[in-house]
Amino acid sequence: MAGYNDRTLEQQAQRILNDVADQGRNPKALMERLASLRIEIPSWGFADTGTRFGKFLQPAAARTTEEKLEDAAEVHRRTGICPSVAIHVLWDFPAGWDPQVAHRAHELGMKIGSINPNLFQDQCYKYGSLANPDPKIRAVAVQHCLNSIELAKEAGSGLLSLWLADGTNYPGQDSIRDRKRRVGECLKQIYAALPDGMTMLVEYKPFEPAFYHTDIADWGMAYIFAREVGPQAKVLVDFGHHLPGQNIEQIVAWLLDEGMLGGFHFNDHKYADDDLTFSSIDPYAAFRVFHEIVSADDPDHGPADIAYMIDQSHNLKPKIAAMIQTVTMIHELFAKALLVDRQNLAEAQTRGDIVAAETALRDAFFTDTRPLVGAARIQMGLAPDALAAHEASGYTQRAAQERAARHGISKGGSYA
Amino acid sequence: MAGYNDRTLEQQAQRILNDVADQGRNPKALMERLASLRIEIPSWGFADTGTRFGKFLQPAAARTTEEKLEDAAEVHRRTGICPSVAIHVLWDFPAGWDPQVAHRAHELGMKIGSINPNLFQDQCYKYGSLANPDPKIRAVAVQHCLNSIELAKEAGSGLLSLWLADGTNYPGQDSIRDRKRRVGECLKQIYAALPDGMTMLVEYKPFEPAFYHTDIADWGMAYIFAREVGPQAKVLVDFGHHLPGQNIEQIVAWLLDEGMLGGFHFNDHKYADDDLTFSSIDPYAAFRVFHEIVSADDPDHGPADIAYMIDQSHNLKPKIAAMIQTVTMIHELFAKALLVDRQNLAEAQTRGDIVAAETALRDAFFTDTRPLVGAARIQMGLAPDALAAHEASGYTQRAAQERAARHGISKGGSYA
Amino acid sequence: MAGYNDRTLEQQAQRILNDVADQGRNPKALMERLASLRIEIPSWGFADTGTRFGKFLQPAAARTTEEKLEDAAEVHRRTGICPSVAIHVLWDFPAGWDPQVAHRAHELGMKIGSINPNLFQDQCYKYGSLANPDPKIRAVAVQHCLNSIELAKEAGSGLLSLWLADGTNYPGQDSIRDRKRRVGECLKQIYAALPDGMTMLVEYKPFEPAFYHTDIADWGMAYIFAREVGPQAKVLVDFGHHLPGQNIEQIVAWLLDEGMLGGFHFNDHKYADDDLTFSSIDPYAAFRVFHEIVSADDPDHGPADIAYMIDQSHNLKPKIAAMIQTVTMIHELFAKALLVDRQNLAEAQTRGDIVAAETALRDAFFTDTRPLVGAARIQMGLAPDALAAHEASGYTQRAAQERAARHGISKGGSYA
Amino acid sequence: MAGYNDRTLEQQAQRILNDVADQGRNPKALMERLASLRIEIPSWGFADTGTRFGKFLQPAAARTTEEKLEDAAEVHRRTGICPSVAIHVLWDFPAGWDPQVAHRAHELGMKIGSINPNLFQDQCYKYGSLANPDPKIRAVAVQHCLNSIELAKEAGSGLLSLWLADGTNYPGQDSIRDRKRRVGECLKQIYAALPDGMTMLVEYKPFEPAFYHTDIADWGMAYIFAREVGPQAKVLVDFGHHLPGQNIEQIVAWLLDEGMLGGFHFNDHKYADDDLTFSSIDPYAAFRVFHEIVSADDPDHGPADIAYMIDQSHNLKPKIAAMIQTVTMIHELFAKALLVDRQNLAEAQTRGDIVAAETALRDAFFTDTRPLVGAARIQMGLAPDALAAHEASGYTQRAAQERAARHGISKGGSYA
Repeated sequence: MAGYNDRTLEQQAQRILNDVADQGRNPKALMERLASLRIEIPSWGFADTGTRFGKFLQPAAARTTEEKLEDAAEVHRRTGICPSVAIHVLWDFPAGWDPQVAHRAHELGMKIGSINPNLFQDQCYKYGSLANPDPKIRAVAVQHCLNSIELAKEAGSGLLSLWLADGTNYPGQDSIRDRKRRVGECLKQIYAALPDGMTMLVEYKPFEPAFYHTDIADWGMAYIFAREVGPQAKVLVDFGHHLPGQNIEQIVAWLLDEGMLGGFHFNDHKYADDDLTFSSIDPYAAFRVFHEIVSADDPDHGPADIAYMIDQSHNLKPKIAAMIQTVTMIHELFAKALLVDRQNLAEAQTRGDIVAAETALRDAFFTDTRPLVGAARIQMGLAPDALAAHEASGYTQRAAQERAARHGISKGGSYA
Repeated sequence: MAGYNDRTLEQQAQRILNDVADQGRNPKALMERLASLRIEIPSWGFADTGTRFGKFLQPAAARTTEEKLEDAAEVHRRTGICPSVAIHVLWDFPAGWDPQVAHRAHELGMKIGSINPNLFQDQCYKYGSLANPDPKIRAVAVQHCLNSIELAKEAGSGLLSLWLADGTNYPGQDSIRDRKRRVGECLKQIYAALPDGMTMLVEYKPFEPAFYHTDIADWGMAYIFAREVGPQAKVLVDFGHHLPGQNIEQIVAWLLDEGMLGGFHFNDHKYADDDLTFSSIDPYAAFRVFHEIVSADDPDHGPADIAYMIDQSHNLKPKIAAMIQTVTMIHELFAKALLVDRQNLAEAQTRGDIVAAETALRDAFFTDTRPLVGAARIQMGLAPDALAAHEASGYTQRAAQERAARHGISKGGSYA
Repeated sequence: MAGYNDRTLEQQAQRILNDVADQGRNPKALMERLASLRIEIPSWGFADTGTRFGKFLQPAAARTTEEKLEDAAEVHRRTGICPSVAIHVLWDFPAGWDPQVAHRAHELGMKIGSINPNLFQDQCYKYGSLANPDPKIRAVAVQHCLNSIELAKEAGSGLLSLWLADGTNYPGQDSIRDRKRRVGECLKQIYAALPDGMTMLVEYKPFEPAFYHTDIADWGMAYIFAREVGPQAKVLVDFGHHLPGQNIEQIVAWLLDEGMLGGFHFNDHKYADDDLTFSSIDPYAAFRVFHEIVSADDPDHGPADIAYMIDQSHNLKPKIAAMIQTVTMIHELFAKALLVDRQNLAEAQTRGDIVAAETALRDAFFTDTRPLVGAARIQMGLAPDALAAHEASGYTQRAAQERAARHGISKGGSYA
Repeated sequence: MAGYNDRTLEQQAQRILNDVADQGRNPKALMERLASLRIEIPSWGFADTGTRFGKFLQPAAARTTEEKLEDAAEVHRRTGICPSVAIHVLWDFPAGWDPQVAHRAHELGMKIGSINPNLFQDQCYKYGSLANPDPKIRAVAVQHCLNSIELAKEAGSGLLSLWLADGTNYPGQDSIRDRKRRVGECLKQIYAALPDGMTMLVEYKPFEPAFYHTDIADWGMAYIFAREVGPQAKVLVDFGHHLPGQNIEQIVAWLLDEGMLGGFHFNDHKYADDDLTFSSIDPYAAFRVFHEIVSADDPDHGPADIAYMIDQSHNLKPKIAAMIQTVTMIHELFAKALLVDRQNLAEAQTRGDIVAAETALRDAFFTDTRPLVGAARIQMGLAPDALAAHEASGYTQRAAQERAARHGISKGGSYA
């Protein structure tokens, strides 16, 4: 179908905005909110990734931090709403802070975003990092986080994003309660080093790589840890880190109401933490999360301060195309959430008219918002079809050639 | 948003059909296929239902078979694609075949559709019906099915729809293998009584009301039973009868390819067999099922012969409104599936272009098909917004008054 | 196998206790802890229950509060550890406090235990109780809870046990955040009426009867509500109220560590909230919960104050037999948890010896504890095989005759 | 607790066997059946494995096929029931058949067991192997299987074990039906090359590494493929390859009844395909599978011909200890299944006595069978506590030293 290539794209956008005006709302404000969305891109989203069974390699995959920044800049160039890059300390700054990286980011018009310590890869973390029974290993893990805070200061980043892979594989392997106390104690030490204005995000995940229990397994555990250490700690919601059936939008609504929602990791999944591109499996569920966020806008102070970050594994898809596709989907779904006629919705809810209330939500979801996103891009001086523009640019083909020349051909990893 | 009340509805429909023509396809054939869809409505969808914790009663709920037929006729009157009513033998023909019912259906312009025996409600079925260890109980259950076949013949129905609640609650309660053999033997007896041209549908369900094992628990078991008894037996897929994560469209694709897909029970769920209105939780998953069905159209013989039936519990929603909403959603999603540019899709698949292939599917899903369904209704002489037309008619208010006068006010059931 | 009828039962018990002594522990203290366990039995566990598809009726099912108390007394008579009965306000005291009931309980040697308001059955709760958008309905629900507190005072009970069925079936049906605030406000009003020494238990459940969102859906939500209202509020864990895969023992460990674990509802499930007899599906998971409880014993103050309650639906099993079976299983699993050699376990955990640590746990689980429970019963003057003693007593046959004579034969409920 | 080190071990065994005799059964036959169990060990179970987040390396991990055979021989030396080793073609015979490997196996007293082709690791399999849209890639995959059959002939193995990682990550990525047909066609070609007496096992898995659909996703699909190609094809059940809640013992019972159960891959899981040691999460579920197998023993022809194989990832546990632990658990659970008094069980089932039937099963499960397994080992001239004997032998310490000297220290893999 026509989609972004519809010749009547801007006319379709106007038609929708007229409906918004008919509801007594301000179409201009809606378009401004749509244009002001910012999505952070992860540096690791451009590298080769895979499953425990191996990686399928792509010639254009980025292998250096500089290549990752260049790829991120290409995503921003096409979408206009992705000016910052999440950094993985171990992979992007293996030798500590490097001003060259910051310089290169600046040249590319990009900022360094959230700083992600790595507490899972070193052999010393076999029995955990902050939950490790050995105090010496815990000290190593805490020090890595303190270093990451220093690095964040250098980079001008305001976000320290903590994901613990800690957990156990077998009942009895370790004491669940002792591990809880160790993590709480370490988080206090890390929090104490946070400068003013820096936020510590605490992420949760039910399983993988730990298969019996994970030390921060759900939002309730992340909430308790964050509450305990202080007001600069918030909860980070990763879409893939939930058990089948869990109502993610309800968790989002609760965290918003408690003032404890710090950020998101966007991705989608059908089974476990599959790290597929956002909304590729269940776009209506993703829309409902945006609906909760927009519904929680403070009438006086505007939207809550939430860090929107992508965290996906592009095992098979070309990495930049997958990222542009993702940003586009986020933008379209956010537009759908903005379209919900909340006054109409609230009235139907109050009178117990379930069908009308549901219809108010679904009318927005089933409205095609590609014209709105396309119009927003045109206003930013961009092509409405970001993916087509990227593909027409030949960027990936060039990157493949240059990178193969630079690094040679890499071999895949294996399972055993 | 405007939706069915868009003043430019038909113009929007034309815009979409122009896209279809641009793809080298026949827009007229598409609209004909859209108009030819037929959805069967269950008589029990108009009665009060609930959970084990009780029922919330509605004054307009139907309590007699005649009232159920009248409600079904109202749904058909508004949507134009629902001329038949599924019958539940025990509830609709408690005393066996009743020509008055058929006469009333005929008066209302409705046909009697699939015939559903009841093999779970009688106290004798505590340990199962066709799987019961007691041969006398099995004989009772078989006889009920034979009677249902007779009733189907009288009613001119070509579908016997079998759902077994059989199973056990505790490991060891009964022999799984012996029960398999008993069910197989009984199905043979029932099949032997089928007249030519009548189809036996075998439904499966993983759990509820049995909580340890269900005798026909998944599509593989239903498939084996159906294959075993003969070519007039097919598998019935109920959307809610799957474990979390199970890929329903793959099951549909397999059954289609094996020539074993007999019919659907439409509904949706987030957790278990929640029996919510179709696509209310995951419309993209529902769309993917229609995509498989349309993709399997035989180029020479056209679409497969599949019985589309609704099977929902409208515990809270007004029942007729919920049914019209459901039929509308089915119609819109079916339209989206018809819009998929299958040649473009196949080409992208062949060249391994995942993003382009996915986009071909999603372009259709994200196209707003309310204009197409609205246009189809206008062609049928109906109002484009079926739900609004129903609500404007005052049908439910009248029914509530008349039925309260006829039956008095009923009391709810309780848990214990 | 021999089990409780082993002629060498006491010798086997001694053999196990010798092992305990060999570990440097006190076998006598272990047997005392085993004998001091107390399990509360629910009055509603003796009534006919079923699924939404209907109830299978039992002639001996209790239909009056007095009959329920008599059945509970029979369970206590055989097991020796069940002296109290949980009360369901609406079903057991439909007209408010009734001193006759208390008198009859006293005669039977039983106490009235936790008081359970009913906030789901009345037609007014269609859109919720404490979360209802209508403040008048919320006031009705709060008043019922205040009445229940009065009833608890009269009955000498120290536990108010709150389960909300509140939630919605469809996205958009109501505002998740507004409902959260309403529930929080109502809980404050109820808490304010609690006398000193009375505990309010807040239960959670992911779904059913609500199928899109439940207002108190998980332990994190119950925790936040309980924390918010005050120190007499604790969380109630029902085994069946968890999503597939959720690690229940970890939740228990966290709540214990936070001082927020108030009680349990024992039952088991394979799929949803199946309400099967405890540990009938996964006894090792049940054992792990007891292991966390015993592990959290305070060396100075002894075990935490936790209310152990059974909450099951005996849809098919004879109700008293099912209850005795459950109490026996709890007793056996608790004995296994007491057998864990915690010093050995802690040492293996500290040195990272996963196999040895796991073995320490599993050695206890795989030890046959029927001899210990049997010996404990003999010490209480009871038959070691409680179930056989009950069956030999003819109690159920007598109850069936008397109750049929008293009430006539009841009819089953139906789905639609 | 005492367990295998109980001084009265043989006396305890005798006590249990006396119970068996009291039931009118033959204790000697039971012990013979217990001793005749054979479990195949996978060569890859001794190598370093991990998750997509990395591997934790062990100094004693095997890195050559010879080392794997030596480790397998150590497992057999301690347990007495593991004389054969499953071979992974790509990892163990990277250059095709190698008579040295066979020779070394023979020296160690081990046989080569099932042959496992690798259809997932090569870069050419990015879009699948037997389901790949490209016929050239399918031909490569088929040829690898044909080579594997040749290798099996050389090795004297009677089992070709096929696991396909084939599937897609995104809706629309490829045609589900076309892929089904391609797999079916390729399987026919492979089957045609099977010599008489060789069995082809078809494995299924719902997800991972494919995250949207897997081409052989469940037992029904494996069944249809196996039926289609011919009588030498059977279904392979891997415990971890099921969705949450799926009733594995029912699938086993069905496959046994259809004569289509070819083999097992033993492991356990709590969430996804976690590949933990067998029964470490849910031993009762594992026991129920053995109960189905023993229940299906043909009175005239004895047990069905089923290949019992271990397939686990020992990411954290020492690999040989984990394997001995697994074999021991299988042996103990199999002993429990042999203890079920099936006549008593059948009688309780027939009279609908759920509690008695369940008790017949649980009495066997809760009987401590370590004495029986210990006695069986003593009869084989082995130490009753296989794990302790292995640990006392110093094998792992020696292997660690020798292998570090031979290969140097390896580095871990990383995620991105």
